[in-house]
Amino acid sequence: MTLAGGNKLITENSIQTEEKVNNIKVLKFGGSSVADFNKIRHIADYLKKRVEQKEKLVVVVSAMGKTTDALLKNVATLSERPKESALAMLLTTGEQQTIAYLSIILNDLSVESVALTGAQAGIRTEGHHLKSKIQTINTTKLQALFKTKDIIIVAGFQGINHEDELTTLGRGGSDTTAVALAASLQASCEIYSDVTGIFGTDPRVYPETKKMDYVSFEEMMELSSLGAGVLETRCIEIAYNNNTKIYTGKTLSEEKGTWIVPNEQIIERKAVTGIALDEDMNYVTLSYPMHDTKVLTSLYELLEQNQINIDMISQTVNIDGMQLSFTMKNTEQYQIKAIIDQLTASYPALLHEIKDNYAKVSIIGSGMRDMSGVASKVFMSLIEEQIAYYQVSTSEISISLVVDAGNAKQAVQILCKKFNV
Amino acid sequence: MTLAGGNKLITENSIQTEEKVNNIKVLKFGGSSVADFNKIRHIADYLKKRVEQKEKLVVVVSAMGKTTDALLKNVATLSERPKESALAMLLTTGEQQTIAYLSIILNDLSVESVALTGAQAGIRTEGHHLKSKIQTINTTKLQALFKTKDIIIVAGFQGINHEDELTTLGRGGSDTTAVALAASLQASCEIYSDVTGIFGTDPRVYPETKKMDYVSFEEMMELSSLGAGVLETRCIEIAYNNNTKIYTGKTLSEEKGTWIVPNEQIIERKAVTGIALDEDMNYVTLSYPMHDTKVLTSLYELLEQNQINIDMISQTVNIDGMQLSFTMKNTEQYQIKAIIDQLTASYPALLHEIKDNYAKVSIIGSGMRDMSGVASKVFMSLIEEQIAYYQVSTSEISISLVVDAGNAKQAVQILCKKFNV
Repeated sequence: MTLAGGNKLITENSIQTEEKVNNIKVLKFGGSSVADFNKIRHIADYLKKRVEQKEKLVVVVSAMGKTTDALLKNVATLSERPKESALAMLLTTGEQQTIAYLSIILNDLSVESVALTGAQAGIRTEGHHLKSKIQTINTTKLQALFKTKDIIIVAGFQGINHEDELTTLGRGGSDTTAVALAASLQASCEIYSDVTGIFGTDPRVYPETKKMDYVSFEEMMELSSLGAGVLETRCIEIAYNNNTKIYTGKTLSEEKGTWIVPNEQIIERKAVTGIALDEDMNYVTLSYPMHDTKVLTSLYELLEQNQINIDMISQTVNIDGMQLSFTMKNTEQYQIKAIIDQLTASYPALLHEIKDNYAKVSIIGSGMRDMSGVASKVFMSLIEEQIAYYQVSTSEISISLVVDAGNAKQAVQILCKKFNV
Repeated sequence: MTLAGGNKLITENSIQTEEKVNNIKVLKFGGSSVADFNKIRHIADYLKKRVEQKEKLVVVVSAMGKTTDALLKNVATLSERPKESALAMLLTTGEQQTIAYLSIILNDLSVESVALTGAQAGIRTEGHHLKSKIQTINTTKLQALFKTKDIIIVAGFQGINHEDELTTLGRGGSDTTAVALAASLQASCEIYSDVTGIFGTDPRVYPETKKMDYVSFEEMMELSSLGAGVLETRCIEIAYNNNTKIYTGKTLSEEKGTWIVPNEQIIERKAVTGIALDEDMNYVTLSYPMHDTKVLTSLYELLEQNQINIDMISQTVNIDGMQLSFTMKNTEQYQIKAIIDQLTASYPALLHEIKDNYAKVSIIGSGMRDMSGVASKVFMSLIEEQIAYYQVSTSEISISLVVDAGNAKQAVQILCKKFNV
């Protein structure tokens, strides 16, 4: 099994061998779904019903409500740069408390469960203590436990590294735990939160947007990497690489959510399934009066060293020299300024311009592959409404445009209407 | 290494081999010593000073102040009989949070530390999830860590059992963690709390009582098993069996505390070093008109089954039959009544009497072994003051008497004065 970035997710004892347990489902409940004991009780009642239908459940939970924020607030009073290994150790207690409470409640409902920390569940991680990546999941213990238990509750967002130190998984960590467990157990994954499913665009921008019944892994990856939240890109990557179906829906709601599935399982393909909006973008232009690639090499090295992500890069070379433009998040404006100052010190002829107040609008749909005219329809729609766009970049299944921040929402609305998103 | 009750405390990789690290000290700070961040900061400052004196420290901490109580209160709202394994998992988070906070603060003081849960520190336990006993401590990791770290912070009161489940150690758990770690590392153990040391008797009963500079393991075991708090008997047993010296003193105080050391290290031995008072005792008498040991076997079986501890047992046999009397805690009164009812059903000739409102006064001193006349001096002192005593039991280094609850404090005061305790 392959993880994002080419990392291998090795299932040390794959469920494929010998006894395949087919009725395993992985369910994940986010922090607001377990915000108080009453909510946890309702989830326990629901889980009991699922178990009565002969399902075996892995239940991944986050820390209760604002627990993690409260722990971070305590730490903020103690240290400006808290030691990361100790902070990870502190934060894992939030999820550990939720699993203990849920197990106590299930026990009173006569449902056999066991609560496991990430480490106990065999989740091995690597990398930075607070932004660890799951490296392997040893499912031997989980499979053994299912012989006597109906529910295995696993603390989300955490694992243990090769030095036996506790680690946390960073943003979207509990979702990642759930999807990786589902991948290792060849189960499907149900992610429950406040959101009823995946919409074509942010309903706050275009309230008429439709919830999708199905969306493909690739579309979902584009949607989330282009700024449409719901699930972190890394979760979808793990699911995509392991063919793990994900259902996202509202906690304890009858309302139908969205399935994220392999592309080939989507029969009727729309040209455009989603429109993502990434606000607070800067637009940077660099000009150099000669064609000298050394200045570019230096730039990319500095960006790499400072871990700045740039986007929508376009480069032109003509007799006046080179021109490079790209977009980036506004939050990294000061870092980019420092980098350009460093460059100008070495290359005094370098000119630059950093403009803020831009937004990136992205149109996503795996149907674009087979349908022509999507791009021209996009451009025409914006021109008709006199919305200027400054840069365009495309992938196989997406088109992104830079527009003025003030026009961004209107652009999304126009495109949603045009493509029935 | 032998633990209480004959359990073996196996140090899997004893520090005796090869590199003996001589400057290791184990320090333990109780819940009230780490009740808030300010207190933890002061402890961190103190630890920094110790490290500057080239000491290597294992620091065992409890949960902050009332954290454990707060968690238990939450659970009380959830369940009347909470699942014990889940409760243990919940409670371990309290100490885990303290070690993380302390490590963050030490890091800001440029002191190299590492925080370990009980499980990470290699503390293996056995038995009931909430009253586990330490079975083995693998010190390999601790010794390896001391090559780069000056302080290893260990979460008290917890471990992990043979099924890799988290467990807690029950009453006095953090003290037990500290003493067992010190025993495994052949270090001495310093236990810091609100109490300045070990007094001859409870200062609330006899304010003139003296703090002892030294007390022997055996005397301390008698003192604590006879009801004089400070340290749980199990800690002293571990220390005794492993020759681990314990210092008990007040947190961050200059005032000299008490060393608990092997008997032979105490040069000037007093006849009486301590007087313990155990209040709320019941006094039970059973009479049976024949000499029939079956009734006794049944009684002891029932006591064993119900885990009732009885004490100061005396039995007489004469031509009128058998008479057995013993003392027990008032809190177990209802259980003993049920047991006697069960016995009377099988042995209708059995007569019984349960009287409450008694107390047990115990006089302890290893010097008693070599000094005669202690017992008679005790009895004479009480008779002079017209304090009646109903039963006497003696060990090599102690004498216990049952007195009326109303006379108990006066008896302690008289004896303290007489023996200069």
